[in-house]
Amino acid sequence: MAAASKEAAVGLASVETSMKNAALLGMAKTLEANIKTIIKANQKDVKSAEKNKLSPALVDRLRLDEKRIKAMAESLRVVAGLPDPVGQKISTIKRPNGLVIEKVRVPIGVIFIIYESRPNVTSDCVGLCLKSGNAVVLRGGSEAINSNIAIYDILKESCKTAGLPEAAIALIKDTDRKAIEILLAQKQYIDLVMPRGGEELINFVSEKSHVPVIKHYKGVCHTYVDEEADLNMAEKICFNAKVQRPGVCNAMETMLVHKDIAARFLPSMIKRFREAGVEIRACEKTRSVISAIGGPALGKKEIKAATEEDWYAEYLDLILSVKIMESPDEAIAHVRKYGSAHSDAIVTENKQTADYFLKRVDSACAYVNASTRFTDGGQFGMGAEIGISTERLHARGPMGLEELTTYKYVIYGNGQVRE
Amino acid sequence: MAAASKEAAVGLASVETSMKNAALLGMAKTLEANIKTIIKANQKDVKSAEKNKLSPALVDRLRLDEKRIKAMAESLRVVAGLPDPVGQKISTIKRPNGLVIEKVRVPIGVIFIIYESRPNVTSDCVGLCLKSGNAVVLRGGSEAINSNIAIYDILKESCKTAGLPEAAIALIKDTDRKAIEILLAQKQYIDLVMPRGGEELINFVSEKSHVPVIKHYKGVCHTYVDEEADLNMAEKICFNAKVQRPGVCNAMETMLVHKDIAARFLPSMIKRFREAGVEIRACEKTRSVISAIGGPALGKKEIKAATEEDWYAEYLDLILSVKIMESPDEAIAHVRKYGSAHSDAIVTENKQTADYFLKRVDSACAYVNASTRFTDGGQFGMGAEIGISTERLHARGPMGLEELTTYKYVIYGNGQVRE
Repeated sequence: MAAASKEAAVGLASVETSMKNAALLGMAKTLEANIKTIIKANQKDVKSAEKNKLSPALVDRLRLDEKRIKAMAESLRVVAGLPDPVGQKISTIKRPNGLVIEKVRVPIGVIFIIYESRPNVTSDCVGLCLKSGNAVVLRGGSEAINSNIAIYDILKESCKTAGLPEAAIALIKDTDRKAIEILLAQKQYIDLVMPRGGEELINFVSEKSHVPVIKHYKGVCHTYVDEEADLNMAEKICFNAKVQRPGVCNAMETMLVHKDIAARFLPSMIKRFREAGVEIRACEKTRSVISAIGGPALGKKEIKAATEEDWYAEYLDLILSVKIMESPDEAIAHVRKYGSAHSDAIVTENKQTADYFLKRVDSACAYVNASTRFTDGGQFGMGAEIGISTERLHARGPMGLEELTTYKYVIYGNGQVRE
Repeated sequence: MAAASKEAAVGLASVETSMKNAALLGMAKTLEANIKTIIKANQKDVKSAEKNKLSPALVDRLRLDEKRIKAMAESLRVVAGLPDPVGQKISTIKRPNGLVIEKVRVPIGVIFIIYESRPNVTSDCVGLCLKSGNAVVLRGGSEAINSNIAIYDILKESCKTAGLPEAAIALIKDTDRKAIEILLAQKQYIDLVMPRGGEELINFVSEKSHVPVIKHYKGVCHTYVDEEADLNMAEKICFNAKVQRPGVCNAMETMLVHKDIAARFLPSMIKRFREAGVEIRACEKTRSVISAIGGPALGKKEIKAATEEDWYAEYLDLILSVKIMESPDEAIAHVRKYGSAHSDAIVTENKQTADYFLKRVDSACAYVNASTRFTDGGQFGMGAEIGISTERLHARGPMGLEELTTYKYVIYGNGQVRE
């Protein structure tokens, strides 16, 4: 199967853009024409999930309805509308000896994606991989197997109708983890593996893989509220970053607050968090500030003391650690030490402080005056995302079409030889 | 030591371009001022190499003279003159909600380079790493240890004089391989390891490393002489690609020749190769063509039959495999099957055939009408090269300043939150 994917990738690399777009638009249309079939398959998964007592949050991630399927189709249409990265000239060098060296984007080859829960990932990944000229091997979670098969069958049919190689998209129907291990050994056929899921899955893949891995790993995201922040804006941003969807990697886990605005900012901010059910774990200074202001809902006793582990924690839940900072430098040092270089924000009206922070934090996505929740392929205008890279090499942050390509040099000569 | 390098890398990331350039120019000047000291240290290495009966080619790679040291200094000056990649905006996205998303180049961090023989690699790597804002850890071969220490001491002093962090450049003086293994485990401090050397070293590093590896692996390079080639040009290019420096990764190992020009092209080409001491290993058709033309110097008996292994071989020597092709498609298939996706060329006057070949071979460097010997950072205008990547991800082919960077997204908002 992996060999067939490689073969398909060779063909896909030189397929015309119009043909790839036609395939994606065909997929969108066929998905919408088969909403009932997909929902029926999805209901099997939802029922077993409920039977197996998966958490309501997980069941919600799994569930497909008409709106969600239409969103999947829409995402394919957006990707079809984006420029084709394949063949793009990144740069051209003209050498004194007359050689013309063009750096040109080419597909990576065969991409193996391992994911959990959300069945929309199936169509998002197929759309991005095909448009960027890559063959894709999909391995969804066992909890979504019926939904994934239903979606895959539709996508594969559209792929065939459009005249693309049939093996361009493959789905591993075997939900045993052994199947992953076998594929991770096929380094002559698979060029990249992207695990998206829990820490345990990612460690398993990293350890077993003979194929290069781009990890979609954890996000310990910070928002630093500077002394020169607009405090209303800061409250809105921090609340959104923590509460709007706490279970995802770009949600805020730690809020850092400059000491000089702590007494003005923290009481109403923390009150609002607590009203939304957020558990606060705070440094001693934060606890004192709140206690000094008083009031039973904000008493020191009710705010848990944060431990050293809290600063490293990715809660993925309605829990927030809070720490008071002496300076932007302390905030930068905290983010560098405890963060995961995923998404970190500063809220400040001082442009110099903002630039200082943005340059010095080592985050894949460094924000000023916005919620970290925007770290997302769709929100970045990529149509969808294949994942959010937590690596330093090749790609960082949300990965769209360009990030699914590599390049080659094409060199035009007229008889040049090396002296 | 690795921790100190990481610390230095944090500082280097925001050093002004002018300061980095001053350091590089200072290094160039000091290298030239210390030619005698360097040559003295190098003579120790050359003497032990001769005593240990290293091959004359290896001793030559090791040897430094005034000219070579001046070339090292010149290379540092060229790199100082190149644009600083750090802080360059790769692209800017403006979103409908007002967010401005800038993709900005940043250094990778700490780069660990493992290399053999040539002591000029020491200064080339220091120049490229510092200019691109990275800290570098060097591990040269034991055969060049005295030369490397002499060069390193000079570079380090210039680094200090220019006000760069002292730990920005480090040299492992311990020539035991255990030292490499210890460093390959420091994934919290080292961001990238680049092994340059023999297959055994590269396999050792790949296997032991917890740090991402970019391999500088083998080059099984081809030149395909098309039926519409200018045969004089083809002869010049093929001779250069094989003979000018046979021991390097961008030298040609296999020559593919279209059947329709074989009888006109091969006799004089092969005669010239044989006069230069090149051993030919050929397919049956090639042997027949040559035998049909006759002449004792070109008799079939004197041309060895190539085995299947020959098509995969990286000889790094005056040996060449030759095969007759039915068509450009067969040549493309041969290159894809037996090649190492390093550097491959077509010689043809037909632009369509050239484009067809260039698009379909999967080479990091695909040439038309030029010698594969140009795959080199200096020849590509990069000043020097940190290595030639044989990976598909992050960087392919010669790696210069840009390839030593990654990027981050800097996002400017005015209070945006996710709906």
